[in-house]
Amino acid sequence: MTPHPPDARRPLDAASSEALHPRAREVLLAALDAGWADPRRLHHEGRRARLLLDNAREVVADQLAVRPDEVTFTPSGTDAVHRGLLGLHGARSRAGRTVVVSAVEHSSVLHAARWTGETVVEVPVTPTGEVLPEAAARAVATAEGSVSVLAVQSANHEVGTLHDVAAIARAAGDVPLFMDACASAGRLPLPPGWSAAAASAHKWGGPAGVGLLLVRKGVRWRQPFPGDDRGDERATGFENVPAALAAAAALQAVGDEAEELARRQHALVDRIRREVATLPDVEVVGDAERRLPHLVTFSCLYLDGEALVTELDRLGFGVASGSACTSSTLTPSHVLAAMGALTHGNVRLSLQRTTTEADVDAFLAALPGVVTSLRERIGW
Amino acid sequence: MTPHPPDARRPLDAASSEALHPRAREVLLAALDAGWADPRRLHHEGRRARLLLDNAREVVADQLAVRPDEVTFTPSGTDAVHRGLLGLHGARSRAGRTVVVSAVEHSSVLHAARWTGETVVEVPVTPTGEVLPEAAARAVATAEGSVSVLAVQSANHEVGTLHDVAAIARAAGDVPLFMDACASAGRLPLPPGWSAAAASAHKWGGPAGVGLLLVRKGVRWRQPFPGDDRGDERATGFENVPAALAAAAALQAVGDEAEELARRQHALVDRIRREVATLPDVEVVGDAERRLPHLVTFSCLYLDGEALVTELDRLGFGVASGSACTSSTLTPSHVLAAMGALTHGNVRLSLQRTTTEADVDAFLAALPGVVTSLRERIGW
Repeated sequence: MTPHPPDARRPLDAASSEALHPRAREVLLAALDAGWADPRRLHHEGRRARLLLDNAREVVADQLAVRPDEVTFTPSGTDAVHRGLLGLHGARSRAGRTVVVSAVEHSSVLHAARWTGETVVEVPVTPTGEVLPEAAARAVATAEGSVSVLAVQSANHEVGTLHDVAAIARAAGDVPLFMDACASAGRLPLPPGWSAAAASAHKWGGPAGVGLLLVRKGVRWRQPFPGDDRGDERATGFENVPAALAAAAALQAVGDEAEELARRQHALVDRIRREVATLPDVEVVGDAERRLPHLVTFSCLYLDGEALVTELDRLGFGVASGSACTSSTLTPSHVLAAMGALTHGNVRLSLQRTTTEADVDAFLAALPGVVTSLRERIGW
Repeated sequence: MTPHPPDARRPLDAASSEALHPRAREVLLAALDAGWADPRRLHHEGRRARLLLDNAREVVADQLAVRPDEVTFTPSGTDAVHRGLLGLHGARSRAGRTVVVSAVEHSSVLHAARWTGETVVEVPVTPTGEVLPEAAARAVATAEGSVSVLAVQSANHEVGTLHDVAAIARAAGDVPLFMDACASAGRLPLPPGWSAAAASAHKWGGPAGVGLLLVRKGVRWRQPFPGDDRGDERATGFENVPAALAAAAALQAVGDEAEELARRQHALVDRIRREVATLPDVEVVGDAERRLPHLVTFSCLYLDGEALVTELDRLGFGVASGSACTSSTLTPSHVLAAMGALTHGNVRLSLQRTTTEADVDAFLAALPGVVTSLRERIGW
């Protein structure tokens, strides 16, 4: 599919998915043998699976500094987002019905908010994509009807900007805050202030098929979907014990190296931001400092995101574009639009755990030629 | 947790979960390396993941004799059941609102039916647990209001009885039939007649975390939950490519050996049914012939299911009991109640793929002593 052998590939799209962490792979293999049975059953195999699941829950709780009974394993980050947001909304439906979301939330948050059938109010963001506490407070105060839930992500998945969730939660008063932490969990500590939160294991080097729903002890939450008779009343379906254990192992492994990795990636992205900004008619977006360590987005005037992704891919660089998800969703990025940034010709680069300085050198050496040649093709 | 080393264990609870098939394990390992990326992305890693996912879909379609575009991978059988039943119901809500379900459906079907908030009508079953076409027709015809969907499983998960789904669908006229095929898929061919169906990979030796939603081409189906921007409009969340591929590999592997295995297991269960029925005050339930090949349930008068499971487990036999799921759901089995059978003291034994004649010999040698000693303890 590409002229490059696999070892010449430089995947730079960790924000879509990280490859499985070696430690998670080891644990998954062992857990496939030891944890295949139904953890609800009373026989030896069932009790062993149950112990492994409880162990996974404890490791996750420890890594995220929450209580084990605040952790629910879900089949995806998206499912955790839906359950988190809708569970808070449903429990508060008498106190308020309007859903307030930041204008830069992930599509899973927006889908869940619209699914309620209630009024959805968007909180505007700054030109760097930040949700300011005063903007959130204003949206909550001026919303038509009273508000059931406020959704603000920990960090933006497209441009990397961090939000001051604790200050936003204070500004929102007694409206519970749902925090989509899928972009930051496993990379940065969870900020305080949320009533429910969601995370996704494959974004930190865990396997696909594992999300985390976190609901603070004492917070009212109501099952938005059909219930089940399994162990955890917030979840549905047969527990994926091997994957939960592997997700926990990956979280522990990346947790051990997170600070150092974040420092290294932050410095590499600093360099990318600086050098890319020197290219003609290229805009680097988001906050230069208060951002995810591994992610940067820039927009190239006059160019098409899909063409950039394709050409960079041909040279071995696997990057994403907000406007190049699939042919069916070639719509301008609502995140960039909310920031007032260029919505086309954008490239999102997010460093994998294994991305080296040499990979970044190669990318920075290749990019100017790609931009120039694509512009020449369109006669710019 | 048990005095027995693992090799002395005889798990006999395949209906809860089969261990991962060796072929599925191999494929999973390879796919973890090749299929970790986001299949929605345009770069090499993304396109490779997409190809693997399409391949998994084709293998599943081929094995189940359906079209690839009728197959949706979901995170669990339960999720597939919810989407199948509720998707048919939602699409028909103008034509009918009452939900008709057989009295012996899995709890996931009952939860989904109740979640609609509409009237739920139950179709009674015969003493062997069979849903007769005329009973289904009567329930549909006499239901208050018109009917949106009729849910009938392919085979019962607790007693193994098969239903004549094709005849039931004909009897239901133009009401679409949802078929929960979780208990039989991978063991017996899917019967015809359904508009949507659900299956679960860990029940045929695939990994946990994979369900199948099947929706017949041309059938109206409406997303009951928040939507997503992924490739398959019926699914939600990041695609679990490695697990889908492993599930497909397992289905193919068991498909190749299904007929022979079914014949062997059917004969072993025949023997168990005959010998267990000779014990005093023990009732073997379900249909002796028209049943799942690997599963048998019997009830022991005066005894408690949990005590039987625990004592058999101590001797190395891992069996289930309808009334011994978890301490939180120690309620009598609604399946057995609907059949008019004893609802307590029941044991469900379901042969694993690897269960041998010697395992069955050992079980049949041990059971009379277990029943006798437990009855002695309670002074019977």
